[in-house]
Amino acid sequence: MVHTTQCCILMGCLCLFYPWSQVCEWREPEELAALLDLELRENGEPQHQLLQRIRDVAKYSVKTNHPRFFNQLFAGVDYHALTGRFLTEALNTSQYTYEVAPVFVLMEDEVLSKLRSLVGWAEGDGIFCPGGTMSNMYAMNVARYRAFPEVKLKGMWSLPRLAVFTSQQSHYSVMKAAAFQGIGTENVFKVKVDDRGCMIPEDLGETIELAKSQGAVPFFVHATSGTTVQGAFDPLEPIADICDRQGLWMHVDAAWGGSVLFSKEHKHLMRGVERADSVTWNPHKMMLTGLQCSAILLKDTTHLLKHCHSADAKYLFQQDKFYDTSLDTGDKSIQCGRKVDCLKLWLMWKAVGSKGLEERVDRAFTHTRYLVEEMKRREGFELIGKVAPVIKERMMKQGTMMLGYQPQGGRVNFFRMIVISPQLSHQDMTFCLNEIERLGNDL
Amino acid sequence: MVHTTQCCILMGCLCLFYPWSQVCEWREPEELAALLDLELRENGEPQHQLLQRIRDVAKYSVKTNHPRFFNQLFAGVDYHALTGRFLTEALNTSQYTYEVAPVFVLMEDEVLSKLRSLVGWAEGDGIFCPGGTMSNMYAMNVARYRAFPEVKLKGMWSLPRLAVFTSQQSHYSVMKAAAFQGIGTENVFKVKVDDRGCMIPEDLGETIELAKSQGAVPFFVHATSGTTVQGAFDPLEPIADICDRQGLWMHVDAAWGGSVLFSKEHKHLMRGVERADSVTWNPHKMMLTGLQCSAILLKDTTHLLKHCHSADAKYLFQQDKFYDTSLDTGDKSIQCGRKVDCLKLWLMWKAVGSKGLEERVDRAFTHTRYLVEEMKRREGFELIGKVAPVIKERMMKQGTMMLGYQPQGGRVNFFRMIVISPQLSHQDMTFCLNEIERLGNDL
Repeated sequence: MVHTTQCCILMGCLCLFYPWSQVCEWREPEELAALLDLELRENGEPQHQLLQRIRDVAKYSVKTNHPRFFNQLFAGVDYHALTGRFLTEALNTSQYTYEVAPVFVLMEDEVLSKLRSLVGWAEGDGIFCPGGTMSNMYAMNVARYRAFPEVKLKGMWSLPRLAVFTSQQSHYSVMKAAAFQGIGTENVFKVKVDDRGCMIPEDLGETIELAKSQGAVPFFVHATSGTTVQGAFDPLEPIADICDRQGLWMHVDAAWGGSVLFSKEHKHLMRGVERADSVTWNPHKMMLTGLQCSAILLKDTTHLLKHCHSADAKYLFQQDKFYDTSLDTGDKSIQCGRKVDCLKLWLMWKAVGSKGLEERVDRAFTHTRYLVEEMKRREGFELIGKVAPVIKERMMKQGTMMLGYQPQGGRVNFFRMIVISPQLSHQDMTFCLNEIERLGNDL
Repeated sequence: MVHTTQCCILMGCLCLFYPWSQVCEWREPEELAALLDLELRENGEPQHQLLQRIRDVAKYSVKTNHPRFFNQLFAGVDYHALTGRFLTEALNTSQYTYEVAPVFVLMEDEVLSKLRSLVGWAEGDGIFCPGGTMSNMYAMNVARYRAFPEVKLKGMWSLPRLAVFTSQQSHYSVMKAAAFQGIGTENVFKVKVDDRGCMIPEDLGETIELAKSQGAVPFFVHATSGTTVQGAFDPLEPIADICDRQGLWMHVDAAWGGSVLFSKEHKHLMRGVERADSVTWNPHKMMLTGLQCSAILLKDTTHLLKHCHSADAKYLFQQDKFYDTSLDTGDKSIQCGRKVDCLKLWLMWKAVGSKGLEERVDRAFTHTRYLVEEMKRREGFELIGKVAPVIKERMMKQGTMMLGYQPQGGRVNFFRMIVISPQLSHQDMTFCLNEIERLGNDL
């Protein structure tokens, strides 16, 4: 079924896996558009030209699995996970019924169950979503449905004004969710954080009272384990106490931080997570499964997820099927077709075991500690401020490494260093500091 | 960077591409779970065992690219698109900034622009979404925002009760969207269809008046080009007339049917689509790009998409960057990280040209016509009814082919035949009819 020339193209893909010298090969947009010849035409192209196009796409794309790509909350590559991704693409099925995805329905169940057990739940529910923002949206929607089941049928007009609570440094997906789900961004109440970026529980209590005094009805607290910029872990125990007292849904956005649960040494950062109602966890971040792999996990055992999202499409979820239709998990989703996201994680987990994943987490923390110590020993690293954008521009144009900068709160621009790739060594940390010094030495 | 054993695994994937005898190898869930040994353990496994696991995953998965898989609105395989998917996985980046996805930001723009030109728009906006349901949700949300921009900040409490209109046979994602976005499923008004499953425009007019008389405010008409079960195309011109008169957002869900726009012979089915405000189009269906590839296209040129969805995350969309930040398209999305979905379509389009895609559409229609003629010549094909589930069970357990059945409206169970794979021949159509006769001959 595969022609030789097509095989060549498949192989062309695999040739990408050599060590690159540069993290990126910067081109201005106009120049890049011309180099790529993006236009789509009436006639097809010969195979040698397609092969060249593949090489060009690879050449000018950012090498996110380069050891010195520190720019996002994903980086590096795990070849077992990558194999799982290739296999997923080759098998091309949709994760909604046992009929078309028998292996993946059972596999998703096993992977979710294992993630839940790390959270501390012996049972519960969950589903893989296209990214952490969607997982967070699921949590907000299911929480709203638990509090006001009539919302599904009647919409928000049947409800009082609702209020959501999250820290000043939580991910912007909380705002996106509130806007998209008709709750409104001004009904997201921001709770103060301490110096380290962790939510202050006392302020949560006060903010809840404030919202009530304005006539809003609190229903959802969105805590964060691993904030996007500072990597802060909100104190879950006191937050859980407040949610218990007030009868609020407690969600933990552990998209970034969740993977500490693999580590005996570091899981204390999420102490109290088992008291949450739901958890977002993105193995595509610290665990390196590759984009996308995000789970929403629920403690609920009453099929809230299905009741909240089901639309009972008869063409897909026939009830006169010859097998147990509770295996048709698609109606838990707000999507119809859904990509298979469990295989890459499952295969990697089989390959390295929970122990191997634990080692990765521990190694990332070791690198971070080393980096902090090194930085303290050097002068000039507190004065980045206005020069960060210039250093960044030089970095990109020379392609030696990639890391991101941003301001936050009262702070001026600073670099955010993401250290998760298992390929990293202390030498890479030193390189990074030297490189910032080199790129900025005349500023 | 790749070890030999890991290379073996990569190659293991590619060995999947041989012609299978069976579409599926049915196992009961308990048996399959045992065969796969899904449990995740403390320790990793040796490479030979991982290779065996990969073989097992492939063996027991449904072969959706088998020529006789007619079960869903996706099927078949295009090796250029598959190459694009492998390359996407290998490059593992997120489609939100020019910084980390320079090639794909420009490429997405080109592909969307080309799809829009087929719709009949010289300019406009759009984005790839994780599936048609999400694309439809985008349309509903942007329409709501255009009508009531205050909804983003204040939520639905600041708005009157809204009303959505769609046909009785539209996709269930309309209901999912209304529930998720806080509009409520009872505010989705169902418009009657004719015998062929097409929306009756006169009834749309009457239903709008009915909603108004109940105090609801119409804002969104969701028409369908290619319904899920019957493949019906709603009459877009008269629907557009009504939307114009009433000042309503007109959305066309062409997830399934959109690809007819490639065909000079068949594009008349979507006459009037250029008058819509937005269009959902899934190239992963009729165009065979593989899951997932779904675009929401907008006629709007006022950046509604961005205004509606933006949350201005400072860590990602810094405004002091050294390049034109309008290339950072991520804030148009409700997601944060977003998979690259454009490459598979772009590469396939480059390979076969618009002409090649047109031929595929035309061939699918030819197969359909042949199938209808053949069915008319045979007796017994109107009496499927109660026996469909039994025929389906036998079909799955023998693994000879896969197609879906469902009831609809007053109709009893019938088989839905999806004919899109370029590998198909008239012989496959004949096989399919013979096989239904064979599987059901004693019933």
